[in-house]
Amino acid sequence: MTFDLAGLKYNENGLVPVVTQDATTGEVLMLAWANAEALSRSIDTGKATYWSRSRQSFWVKGESSGHTQMIKSIRVDCDVDAVLYIVDQIGPACHTNRRSCFYTDITDGTATEIMAPLKP
Amino acid sequence: MTFDLAGLKYNENGLVPVVTQDATTGEVLMLAWANAEALSRSIDTGKATYWSRSRQSFWVKGESSGHTQMIKSIRVDCDVDAVLYIVDQIGPACHTNRRSCFYTDITDGTATEIMAPLKP
Repeated sequence: MTFDLAGLKYNENGLVPVVTQDATTGEVLMLAWANAEALSRSIDTGKATYWSRSRQSFWVKGESSGHTQMIKSIRVDCDVDAVLYIVDQIGPACHTNRRSCFYTDITDGTATEIMAPLKP
Repeated sequence: MTFDLAGLKYNENGLVPVVTQDATTGEVLMLAWANAEALSRSIDTGKATYWSRSRQSFWVKGESSGHTQMIKSIRVDCDVDAVLYIVDQIGPACHTNRRSCFYTDITDGTATEIMAPLKP
């Protein structure tokens, strides 16, 4: 059955949250946003594509940094208001050069950095 | 360093997206939302707590279904606008009785259900 990207529940800015997971390690790498066109491009090109809210433009992950994400799977959730990209991540996913953006642990109410930047 | 929950970047409704991941399998189970008080309760009680946008109320996962999520770790991302709960999931995370809410694959532009409901 063809999946109609127009059937997703986008927010008032036409966006859905996208969770990105490493296909090999299962690590949650980042959370970003996509509009229908970014999702369509991800499906068509196999390159993880988002909508940058700060730059108000399409964002092909790694286009400038080289830290690309090749799509292995794309999934939508039961409420069709969230998307999961499962990717082959080249290099760090985070702009701080860490593997994942979720490098700060706050489990006990204190902030602990649990991941060092990767060596260049 | 004490982590100040007020320092997170909440959206216009006072919410941040929360990705929930199974501590054992690494599976991404669901995406939901939390306000500062829901995060504070998660930290204090060790029970994954969200803000239900549809019911406009706190939502302790599994409180009615028994499909609880005990928090193993809570993490925030580099932009402090997204949160990750890593949990011990009892039973299915999805209200459809599937392990994960992300049971529909759309990688090739068609919708394929990749996960059956768990047997009761």
